Amino acid sequence: MTTNHANTPPTDRARVRRIAHRAHYDRATLHAILDDAYVCHVAFGDEHGVHCIPTACWREGDHLYIHGSNGSRMLKLAATGAQICVTITHLDGLVLARSAFHHSMNYRSAVIYGRFEVVADAHKAASLDALVERIAPGRSREARPGSAKELAATTVMRIALDEAATKIRTGGPVDDDEDLALPVWAGVLPIGVARLEPVVAAAPSGTPDYVRQWRHDAQPVDA
Amino acid sequence: MTTNHANTPPTDRARVRRIAHRAHYDRATLHAILDDAYVCHVAFGDEHGVHCIPTACWREGDHLYIHGSNGSRMLKLAATGAQICVTITHLDGLVLARSAFHHSMNYRSAVIYGRFEVVADAHKAASLDALVERIAPGRSREARPGSAKELAATTVMRIALDEAATKIRTGGPVDDDEDLALPVWAGVLPIGVARLEPVVAAAPSGTPDYVRQWRHDAQPVDA
Repeated sequence: MTTNHANTPPTDRARVRRIAHRAHYDRATLHAILDDAYVCHVAFGDEHGVHCIPTACWREGDHLYIHGSNGSRMLKLAATGAQICVTITHLDGLVLARSAFHHSMNYRSAVIYGRFEVVADAHKAASLDALVERIAPGRSREARPGSAKELAATTVMRIALDEAATKIRTGGPVDDDEDLALPVWAGVLPIGVARLEPVVAAAPSGTPDYVRQWRHDAQPVDA
Repeated sequence: MTTNHANTPPTDRARVRRIAHRAHYDRATLHAILDDAYVCHVAFGDEHGVHCIPTACWREGDHLYIHGSNGSRMLKLAATGAQICVTITHLDGLVLARSAFHHSMNYRSAVIYGRFEVVADAHKAASLDALVERIAPGRSREARPGSAKELAATTVMRIALDEAATKIRTGGPVDDDEDLALPVWAGVLPIGVARLEPVVAAAPSGTPDYVRQWRHDAQPVDA
């Protein structure tokens, strides 16, 4: 594993080109962005061209994990060791500048280059437990565990975080000096993730803590 | 332009493989998913491999638009007519089934295959106005318009929506019959986009309607 204490790109391919001061290459920033994500976009190429497919993801240590049916085109291609690019993006706000040109967005994104490796059968159940825990802490001990048949039908893969870059924009609009006096509203319209009211299908043993917490954080559905 | 009234994939490449009953190929479903997005993921290949880059997007008619600096690696590559895959994903909820295996997510995703074309200079300003309008209706008439120099530094590109697929999952968990009596909470933890309290940098002429509306919809920041 490559550690990256300096803020330098691990490879030229992973180097952020545009507005390079927004780039970060340290592991903590990368982990934080990944840990806020439920979904990543996986780009890969095959004989039909380049594809970009969204899929659930979770991090364990210095790997990002994905999973799916053994029949998945993406997973089968990834299992060949094909080069992959995985990207995660959080949109944090719309940035309204006084000039149209300086309108922007606040965001946190991570781009990971590499190849996926198949997680061995011996570790598969634990990895899938980690996904369930990511979705709802404690739930891997409540839900019925995967059967041998279900596990056998599932492929779990992981990609090392060795070749990655993050890019972050925060803060307000940056206008040209000569535009600062224009009579135009300027600021940020921030965006977050709304947890909405849980939809209960069955609660035979009451409400678990993670549902209670979700409800506590929930916004009205019509907001 | 290809119209697609039947629910059939436009090409084999764009055909949804896994859980094909979640696929839709009609234009209205595609438009609705694109119109909810501020950001797309653009996948492309170059001599260094496959890349996946997030960028702002907006729809006009039957094209999806992106823009950026003339110096953008992605835009320069796209301008060569390289094959591209653009993907947009909205995560709508975490689906908690009684069995770990049937945990899922509710989502709406769109995958577009094709090639970008450069928007001609004569249409560039109007296209960028459409982006500003997408962000804040009415704002293109308030912000200082792009100067000739700013427009000249910006590339606007668009991709036709002819070869696209959407995939949608909605609803609650789908458990195996033999699991329905398990004493496990089952349901959906829905996710939405939270509009948070606007951050004002300057309001020299008062508060525009789109900021007022955003504030009206806003959730408490600590929620």
